[in-house]
Amino acid sequence: MTGTSRRTTTPKIDGQSLWNRLDALSKIGETSDGGVTRLALTEEDAQGRRLVEAWLAETGCEISHDAIGNTIAVLPGTEPDLPPVLLGSHVDSVANAGRFDGCLGVLGAVEVLRSVAAGTRPRRSLAAAVFTDEEGTRFGRDLLGSSVTCGLLEPAKALATADADGRTVEQELRRHDLLGTAPLLVGRPPHAYLETHVEQGPVLLRGKLPVAAVTGVIGTSWTRITLTGAAAHAGATPMDMRRDAGLAMATLRLRLHALTEDHPGLTVAVGAMDTHPGQVNVVPATATLTVDLRAPEETVLVKAESAIRPLAEKVARTHGCELTTCDQISRTAPAAFDPAMVDRVAERISAHGLPVRRLWSGAGHDAQQLTTICPTAMVFVRSQHDGISHSREEWSLPEDCALGVQLMAEVAVDLANE
Amino acid sequence: MTGTSRRTTTPKIDGQSLWNRLDALSKIGETSDGGVTRLALTEEDAQGRRLVEAWLAETGCEISHDAIGNTIAVLPGTEPDLPPVLLGSHVDSVANAGRFDGCLGVLGAVEVLRSVAAGTRPRRSLAAAVFTDEEGTRFGRDLLGSSVTCGLLEPAKALATADADGRTVEQELRRHDLLGTAPLLVGRPPHAYLETHVEQGPVLLRGKLPVAAVTGVIGTSWTRITLTGAAAHAGATPMDMRRDAGLAMATLRLRLHALTEDHPGLTVAVGAMDTHPGQVNVVPATATLTVDLRAPEETVLVKAESAIRPLAEKVARTHGCELTTCDQISRTAPAAFDPAMVDRVAERISAHGLPVRRLWSGAGHDAQQLTTICPTAMVFVRSQHDGISHSREEWSLPEDCALGVQLMAEVAVDLANE
Repeated sequence: MTGTSRRTTTPKIDGQSLWNRLDALSKIGETSDGGVTRLALTEEDAQGRRLVEAWLAETGCEISHDAIGNTIAVLPGTEPDLPPVLLGSHVDSVANAGRFDGCLGVLGAVEVLRSVAAGTRPRRSLAAAVFTDEEGTRFGRDLLGSSVTCGLLEPAKALATADADGRTVEQELRRHDLLGTAPLLVGRPPHAYLETHVEQGPVLLRGKLPVAAVTGVIGTSWTRITLTGAAAHAGATPMDMRRDAGLAMATLRLRLHALTEDHPGLTVAVGAMDTHPGQVNVVPATATLTVDLRAPEETVLVKAESAIRPLAEKVARTHGCELTTCDQISRTAPAAFDPAMVDRVAERISAHGLPVRRLWSGAGHDAQQLTTICPTAMVFVRSQHDGISHSREEWSLPEDCALGVQLMAEVAVDLANE
Repeated sequence: MTGTSRRTTTPKIDGQSLWNRLDALSKIGETSDGGVTRLALTEEDAQGRRLVEAWLAETGCEISHDAIGNTIAVLPGTEPDLPPVLLGSHVDSVANAGRFDGCLGVLGAVEVLRSVAAGTRPRRSLAAAVFTDEEGTRFGRDLLGSSVTCGLLEPAKALATADADGRTVEQELRRHDLLGTAPLLVGRPPHAYLETHVEQGPVLLRGKLPVAAVTGVIGTSWTRITLTGAAAHAGATPMDMRRDAGLAMATLRLRLHALTEDHPGLTVAVGAMDTHPGQVNVVPATATLTVDLRAPEETVLVKAESAIRPLAEKVARTHGCELTTCDQISRTAPAAFDPAMVDRVAERISAHGLPVRRLWSGAGHDAQQLTTICPTAMVFVRSQHDGISHSREEWSLPEDCALGVQLMAEVAVDLANE
């Protein structure tokens, strides 16, 4: 029985080893309060990368870097000319981050390769990728390494990107000896791509589930709005003579919330609200707010986006104000994962005797860029602390991390035996 | 006929002289963009005061200072032992102010005394007051001089008040030679007090009326509110798992607006609204807002004030948030002017062939403190530019200023002949 033969070649993940590596990596760039700061291509990031590469080298992998400094480690299969199964994520972080975001996927891949290397080799090679600068904090462009290797961003453009001090990605890659000649993945697509990541949200925790099969990364649309009325003395200006930009903003905030009723799957967040001049006795002259729309369906996102401007114009007019800014400041399309790949993850969850939860990722991940070149899926691992992330409070349980990586290992070896 | 005899003693205000003095005073502390900065007891304020005192001295007044540095100039009447009729206001300003706020009342008093001095003296003395630090910008306590002289604030406490650099009112009064020994007004109340001031609002402009009889200063209540929810990733946190402090703030803003429907005469302004951390993709953890309630009736103000906390608690609860701050940060009771005094102003407006508009002042004025010691009234002069004030755009027409001061002169001489 094929199923049985596959299962015998599936390695058992060493959860303690995984946990120890997460701990060791978290010491690089550790902050005084126990967080982690490993901004892309800083000395800390490079040191973290060298540690991971040392662990990968111990498994017998061949390690190389491509033109954007992504690390590619290949553990040859019995038929090494076949496209490999790729596992990956990133080890760079935002400022004052936690220890799981990205690192779980990379160190999970290390574990998978280590345990496969210790047993029977599958047909296809297994590969691990550490993508350069997923967070985008330092150079202003997130998913940098995965975008370049998937052919979604010109290498020259990425290399010329500079940080606030004028240091370019290229200078920093050269300084850390990360600039290599390995071909980009777009020219030699993997057989499949898998990534294990912490959920960074509260859904699994509240649902009492350790893992989920991720169905894709939802699309995101950011808009910045300014409403302009007129500053007026709060005492000397009768209510009906005011053009209150703050009142207009509050009204618009509630109307934006109501958009979710008309657009199934849509989420709306307004993270920043502010009034000017912001004095207790002055009716606000202007009010600014940001709108974060997300949806798994592109059509839903487009419809909701197109509703913003007329809504804001109408609300502004009603309050004697004007809509003076309504600018889209960021936009990514939804990236659905390969249904068959998602099913494989779901089947492994089920095989472990757990209820299957399929979940859209609300945050961006390197996996969304990989969908453009090969079948892709992700495993989500439950986050603790109500899902807080990009914070030293980001946390996941050792057993949940081990389970997520175990699922990835099982799917990976299945795929590698195809 | 008594009426006729009075009218013959009523001087005619010189509008051009008034205007020239407003212009000359505005050069002291003039900012590069044409505004005025004459913070209380700075060199600029003292220089302005000296200019005004020189003009007062030219009329033949006796000039003195009291224990808080208020200037009192007395033009003796034919029965100088009778309580005088007092006219006044202030010449200190906020930062980047206009040229009319306060100055119109003081320079109007100069004009009245000048023209009375040139004609037949009335029974009672006419006096002019320049009150110290009406604005409160520098030392943090508005109506400082009028509060002390009306017995509403201990002189020692006022003198010990320090600015941000630690310089006390007393040090500054001594430096400018403004500290005197004239008795406070509370010990020798005037027969009546009159103040001419720009409206600082749009009501007269929109009503096409040059002047109004002020019925009193409305009461003001300021509250600072903080709503606390939980920061959450906008992508990874489903709508029903959020505790969105910003959404709660928007809801509360609209509920506060609706308070005006339940409380006749009440005005509500929310000048400052802010969310934290204020990032486009983070559901706000906290939201802060200020509430400015005003009403001519103390009972209305008290009722509206008492509605705020339960309203905020209910809105917070509805959104899974908590009301973590609900602090009153400032409170003044309404100060109604003497009805007979207001009627005198109204009669003079009518005598000039103009429709009578009675108007509550939404802004604070020295006159509100004077109501505690003597019959008080104010004349409002139309503001241009939709009533903007505390700005270099603050403006009034020369003919409107002259008319307002003329009305004050007529009422003052009537009162002085009593």
